[in-house]
Amino acid sequence: MTLTIGVDVGGTKVAGGVVDDAGAVLAQTRRDTPADDAAKTRDVIVEVVMELAAGRQIEAVGIGAAGWIDANRSTVLFAPNLAWRDEPLRDHVRSAVGLPVIVENDGNVAAWAEFRYGAARHANDSMVMFTIGTGVGGGIVISGELVRGSHGIAAELGHMLAVPDGHQCGCGRLGCIEQYASGSALVRFARSGARQEPHRAAGLLELAGGDIEAITGPMVTAAAKADDAISIEAFAQLGKWLGIGLADLAQILDPQVLVVGGGVVDAGDLLLGPTTQSFMDSVAQRGRLPMAEVRPAELGNSAGVIGAADLARRR
Amino acid sequence: MTLTIGVDVGGTKVAGGVVDDAGAVLAQTRRDTPADDAAKTRDVIVEVVMELAAGRQIEAVGIGAAGWIDANRSTVLFAPNLAWRDEPLRDHVRSAVGLPVIVENDGNVAAWAEFRYGAARHANDSMVMFTIGTGVGGGIVISGELVRGSHGIAAELGHMLAVPDGHQCGCGRLGCIEQYASGSALVRFARSGARQEPHRAAGLLELAGGDIEAITGPMVTAAAKADDAISIEAFAQLGKWLGIGLADLAQILDPQVLVVGGGVVDAGDLLLGPTTQSFMDSVAQRGRLPMAEVRPAELGNSAGVIGAADLARRR
Amino acid sequence: MTLTIGVDVGGTKVAGGVVDDAGAVLAQTRRDTPADDAAKTRDVIVEVVMELAAGRQIEAVGIGAAGWIDANRSTVLFAPNLAWRDEPLRDHVRSAVGLPVIVENDGNVAAWAEFRYGAARHANDSMVMFTIGTGVGGGIVISGELVRGSHGIAAELGHMLAVPDGHQCGCGRLGCIEQYASGSALVRFARSGARQEPHRAAGLLELAGGDIEAITGPMVTAAAKADDAISIEAFAQLGKWLGIGLADLAQILDPQVLVVGGGVVDAGDLLLGPTTQSFMDSVAQRGRLPMAEVRPAELGNSAGVIGAADLARRR
Amino acid sequence: MTLTIGVDVGGTKVAGGVVDDAGAVLAQTRRDTPADDAAKTRDVIVEVVMELAAGRQIEAVGIGAAGWIDANRSTVLFAPNLAWRDEPLRDHVRSAVGLPVIVENDGNVAAWAEFRYGAARHANDSMVMFTIGTGVGGGIVISGELVRGSHGIAAELGHMLAVPDGHQCGCGRLGCIEQYASGSALVRFARSGARQEPHRAAGLLELAGGDIEAITGPMVTAAAKADDAISIEAFAQLGKWLGIGLADLAQILDPQVLVVGGGVVDAGDLLLGPTTQSFMDSVAQRGRLPMAEVRPAELGNSAGVIGAADLARRR
Repeated sequence: MTLTIGVDVGGTKVAGGVVDDAGAVLAQTRRDTPADDAAKTRDVIVEVVMELAAGRQIEAVGIGAAGWIDANRSTVLFAPNLAWRDEPLRDHVRSAVGLPVIVENDGNVAAWAEFRYGAARHANDSMVMFTIGTGVGGGIVISGELVRGSHGIAAELGHMLAVPDGHQCGCGRLGCIEQYASGSALVRFARSGARQEPHRAAGLLELAGGDIEAITGPMVTAAAKADDAISIEAFAQLGKWLGIGLADLAQILDPQVLVVGGGVVDAGDLLLGPTTQSFMDSVAQRGRLPMAEVRPAELGNSAGVIGAADLARRR
Repeated sequence: MTLTIGVDVGGTKVAGGVVDDAGAVLAQTRRDTPADDAAKTRDVIVEVVMELAAGRQIEAVGIGAAGWIDANRSTVLFAPNLAWRDEPLRDHVRSAVGLPVIVENDGNVAAWAEFRYGAARHANDSMVMFTIGTGVGGGIVISGELVRGSHGIAAELGHMLAVPDGHQCGCGRLGCIEQYASGSALVRFARSGARQEPHRAAGLLELAGGDIEAITGPMVTAAAKADDAISIEAFAQLGKWLGIGLADLAQILDPQVLVVGGGVVDAGDLLLGPTTQSFMDSVAQRGRLPMAEVRPAELGNSAGVIGAADLARRR
Repeated sequence: MTLTIGVDVGGTKVAGGVVDDAGAVLAQTRRDTPADDAAKTRDVIVEVVMELAAGRQIEAVGIGAAGWIDANRSTVLFAPNLAWRDEPLRDHVRSAVGLPVIVENDGNVAAWAEFRYGAARHANDSMVMFTIGTGVGGGIVISGELVRGSHGIAAELGHMLAVPDGHQCGCGRLGCIEQYASGSALVRFARSGARQEPHRAAGLLELAGGDIEAITGPMVTAAAKADDAISIEAFAQLGKWLGIGLADLAQILDPQVLVVGGGVVDAGDLLLGPTTQSFMDSVAQRGRLPMAEVRPAELGNSAGVIGAADLARRR
Repeated sequence: MTLTIGVDVGGTKVAGGVVDDAGAVLAQTRRDTPADDAAKTRDVIVEVVMELAAGRQIEAVGIGAAGWIDANRSTVLFAPNLAWRDEPLRDHVRSAVGLPVIVENDGNVAAWAEFRYGAARHANDSMVMFTIGTGVGGGIVISGELVRGSHGIAAELGHMLAVPDGHQCGCGRLGCIEQYASGSALVRFARSGARQEPHRAAGLLELAGGDIEAITGPMVTAAAKADDAISIEAFAQLGKWLGIGLADLAQILDPQVLVVGGGVVDAGDLLLGPTTQSFMDSVAQRGRLPMAEVRPAELGNSAGVIGAADLARRR
């Protein structure tokens, strides 16, 4: 049985795990990310790998990170939440740990994990995943292979246009879907609703200690589950836009499965219900042809470690 | 040298050609399409193939048709401009002509031709093509293979959402990109401009004999080339929306090349200029990373025959 | 008791009535409109007035017509459904009938009738009326007086922008509210729904003899009242946009009453319910300040005659 | 000659002036606003009036304040930048100073000043003014009288809908015109441009000390005048939306003059040019009928004092 290590590098935590060829995580560890220091972030990754590799036969290492990765899966061109700029991460870690290394975008890594071992494991060919975090990321599998793009930046699903001249996006353009279908958008919808109609957001406001600016995504999820009207509406808004985005992907790629991931799927049908309704309303073939099924992600936070490890195995 | 036959089935004409393994068309023929009779349309295809095959060693036949084709490339599920509904076209033609046959969507066929022998022949991996006709079709190549989708309906690019609650589309939804980036949209923009500001559409109105309702796409192209202000603006509007659609595809698939095809490319830079500008303004990575190049199609009306024949060879 | 005559000039009918100073119609008559002949249309108006005036003491005549009327209420500058272009209608009719005459836009006339004797008669100061016909017209009363505008073209409410780059309007622009909140839009929504989901439009399709293109506005109203799902949704779409338009007017003019008129109000709460909901969702002061009440018109087809007659009395 | 006092209550300054019946300011004074203390803000107003009234024969006092004022012009219902909530301001100041007092919304006051003595003084009947500050306010004059609305909240022009589902507004709705045509929007546009294309914002960034977040509206104006490309584009975006808003008002009210006020008019044709172009492109009657002229405000910061004083004279 061959083992590989997956490392998930986030803005706050570096998580690592030893993964077998059935996608099971045999051991794991976690460190804080020294996000503002490029060299220290590399060092923490090396530490995590060394710790996990000790006493084990490891074949290769996969690293998933939020950012643009070059087409060779070796250099991090730009990472919005880390200090890396044109960082030759693969070669550095490879030299330090003496193992083959690949570097991959975090959205791709999560999609791969769900394709192989999660919500789309019954699909043998194609899937698209939207990962809803602070922003919106994604991953695409076609013909059983991850689509990386000719410059390594495929599946930047957050910057599809949702509303011409819409809400201003961090990328500079108005109306990217990230401004309507992200965790940040969910919070923005919920805060706005609580400000306008506080009597309908009583549960949410209680969780936030009465402070609208203190409302977070997990609070909106918890309040929605406890029947808070404004929180439920915030998920319905999110779902409407997510369904529109999924429909675009279904028109473009006609995958077997469409997966929705990220912390927001904890809301269950409060998100998936409106999402599926909007998806069905938005596809041109509605009711006439079979279409992709829409499913929530199943691997949660482990997707990054599992996907990175599995991609390292298939490098 | 192996030869294959490609047949391009349109709403008005059935065109066929004998194609060699370098993409050259060695012989061709053409018939009117009896579009309202499913059986006669099949018969015409068979006639075209028999005529072209006479005295030649033909390996296989490829048929391209506007419509939804099943994932086996055998049955036309629905063809908007023809009488076919769940038509087992492949088996019928195969029995009649005694050769292997594949059936493929017309947008896929044209994209494949451009990928192999046209505007994207220098790309070895990936391309996306928008075909601008009455509607908007498309084709996608990833890892050197056509993306057909799990139900055979990938690359329905015309039904990506452009404007929420926008112009009503024939598919029932409001705001599909087909309503903004198609030949029909070009004519709608030009007619509207001519109605509002006839003095700025003098050249276009002369071509149309003074009748706004008589304006056609080729007239808009001709008038734009002759400096008709309203016609130039109509192409600029088309290009703006086309650039937005191309940007979405670049974000999603990061292909090597983006090809724009259909009769509208006869307008040259009057279309490509605004299209490229809008594309550059719409990609989140603008100026920071290399992106797909945007190119006009090169094979014109022959793309259908060449692509179908080449796909038959690779069946 | 003084009597005046009101004449309502439509594209198909010229209706006239004798009206007393309480807004009661004492006598009426009706002729077909010779719409493509400017002179004959004038002649029919004169005939209608002569017939009604015979044997009565008439003080003045008011004429309401769809079109742009100059600020002196004398000349029809342009009438989309009639042959009049810069037609000096007031002076012609005045000479022919020997009575004082005023000419007024049909939307203004209807609004005035509702303000004086209809849905807004309890308002003593201000109201805005949207008249939903084939297009969208309107009328505005401020400080108890009709707002005519400095060029006679105030209250062209149909050409407020609803959706930037939205559905193309006959005026040449994309996205005027007339494309979303008119009778034509209602029919477009219903036809589109019936085409996509015929099983949910069974009642509507029966009324239309199975022919989607034969669907008319009154059919949608009748089917909606009989619980046809697609027809009910078409009214909900109409109401959503109408509510947005009413909210803009409430923000701008803060009138006492907002009146919705035209044949669509026959649908009752099927229209008024979604309209009021959308209105409440769209005003910035929702729930914090009293706002205009939204009411259906009460005078129906008589509003044109009553309003024109009353304006003639107050000339 | 009668004199009245006008007081302009802003979030940072209380400005007062003695105004004669030709709109000339004969004396003025200014204090800081104790904005978070409702009672102290009243006291400062009283001090300002007492100082100005000393030794003069004053007929009445007018107070302009940002907020919702009741229809009696006596109570401030809500003031977003001040501590007043249901504040009986008129009666308090009247008791304290022993003079007749009226309270009016600041947008109305500025519009009245421009109508009587500024950009619209040649209009004898009607005008609409957009005041572009942090937000968007407005004022409307019809038949020579200010339109106050039946609840005192007419001319809330900032909350007209510009983009359905657009940029989130402070009022809770998505897409109010305030998010596209305000000083805040100008700064947002400029910051976004500077972030994306810093080389085209060199002049603007120099004014801001290299800190994008330090960019202010006056910096954008100064940089635009010095040919900074991003700053010029930010004004063009602002002008596009402002023109659309002005066109809606022209369709609705057909006023003689449309006035644009606020600090942004310092940019001159860099704003007025795109505004007028967008206005002309957006009116349905373009080129067929005379329309309102679009003019920049002329009275600058004095409009508040002059307008309030003049309204007090006409109380």
